[in-house]
Amino acid sequence: MSHYDLIAFDADDTLWHNEPLYEHTQDCLAELLAAYGVDRTTLDEHLFRKETGNISLFGYGIKSFTLSMIEAAIELTEEKIAARDVLAILGLAKAQLTAPIVLLDHVAETVKRIAPDHRIMLVTKGDLLDQESKLARSGLGDYFQTIEVVSDKTVQSYARLFQDLGLNPERVMMVGDSIRSDVLPILELGGTAVYIPYQVTWQHEAGHVPAAGTLRFYQLDHLGQLPELLDELEEG
Amino acid sequence: MSHYDLIAFDADDTLWHNEPLYEHTQDCLAELLAAYGVDRTTLDEHLFRKETGNISLFGYGIKSFTLSMIEAAIELTEEKIAARDVLAILGLAKAQLTAPIVLLDHVAETVKRIAPDHRIMLVTKGDLLDQESKLARSGLGDYFQTIEVVSDKTVQSYARLFQDLGLNPERVMMVGDSIRSDVLPILELGGTAVYIPYQVTWQHEAGHVPAAGTLRFYQLDHLGQLPELLDELEEG
Repeated sequence: MSHYDLIAFDADDTLWHNEPLYEHTQDCLAELLAAYGVDRTTLDEHLFRKETGNISLFGYGIKSFTLSMIEAAIELTEEKIAARDVLAILGLAKAQLTAPIVLLDHVAETVKRIAPDHRIMLVTKGDLLDQESKLARSGLGDYFQTIEVVSDKTVQSYARLFQDLGLNPERVMMVGDSIRSDVLPILELGGTAVYIPYQVTWQHEAGHVPAAGTLRFYQLDHLGQLPELLDELEEG
Repeated sequence: MSHYDLIAFDADDTLWHNEPLYEHTQDCLAELLAAYGVDRTTLDEHLFRKETGNISLFGYGIKSFTLSMIEAAIELTEEKIAARDVLAILGLAKAQLTAPIVLLDHVAETVKRIAPDHRIMLVTKGDLLDQESKLARSGLGDYFQTIEVVSDKTVQSYARLFQDLGLNPERVMMVGDSIRSDVLPILELGGTAVYIPYQVTWQHEAGHVPAAGTLRFYQLDHLGQLPELLDELEEG
């Protein structure tokens, strides 16, 4: 029997590569705007300001990002951008929404190995439909029957989720790549957090890593180390 | 004790007016595009095709609608729309996202009356963040702790939701204004459906009303009649 009634996984950049998809889209946008004399640094800074400024209205995910891209492009070109280039930005969004999903190393075998003995679930921000589509394309759909989407990963939203599911947070493990979203709220609720840093982190998700020796906090290099950690924790 | 372990409510056009917000936004878009010689009927038809064509990629909700508005506007103006007018369309979306929420008649007192003796929940499509924001603005936030967002209201998605919540669908009542989304899937799962038609129905949600006498199907004129129906069903 597991010590954990639920092992919850972040999806983007924990199970599959996601940030590179956004980076590729942003590269294409930069190319498009270069024709209007917009340089890359200006674009990156302005777009990040737009994204964070729009989060309270639009939330996370690709649709929100697309609306921010269009807004930034119009502003940075001083309203000179051609309509066909706005259509091209919509095309970038559609391409990203259907891009192949590439799993991180060790993910497929780890999920297969722990699924039989544990209740596992995806807990993500972003667009539910997009996450469902990514799960289907990832090949992991047989293992994750449910995606729980929260509007933000805060102590309150996790607490409400676990309450709805009838779960004691102390018997929940959350695995993810964001200190701010996947680690700190779970630790505050008395749960176990497993932090697996990704190669790049979206600036918005940065946070201070808890000190070594923090209770119920574990850091791994990759998901392939999770079964061994679980064995240790569940025997201990 | 209630016969029902959960009374689930649709939100848009069941608890609060929603379709009129979309209609107002579309009216503003029509005014904007009239300057380009686009007539209203052409706009309505093209936008509806865009919306339904984009649902599989973008899903439901205001962000999806905004992306479809922009795409339709560019196509209908043959790429002549000025960037500042695309920015105006984004402004329409932001205005709708912060518009005051107006409850339907009888909603506030009905929810207050049944909340103490029943577990109630919102089950909606659309954007989680937008629905949370509407709930907060509606004044009903004290009664609905949880919003469950599903990417589509199908038999499968309801079945999965009730399973996650540990609920027997036969002990669930769903209240809503859409035959297709709120009534038929629930009846198929053996649950109870209460249909309260709204003044206007989005074309996409139209469906055949079950025949009079259909088991566990009830139609009301307004939500104020729900407590009496519950009393009858729970005494019977």
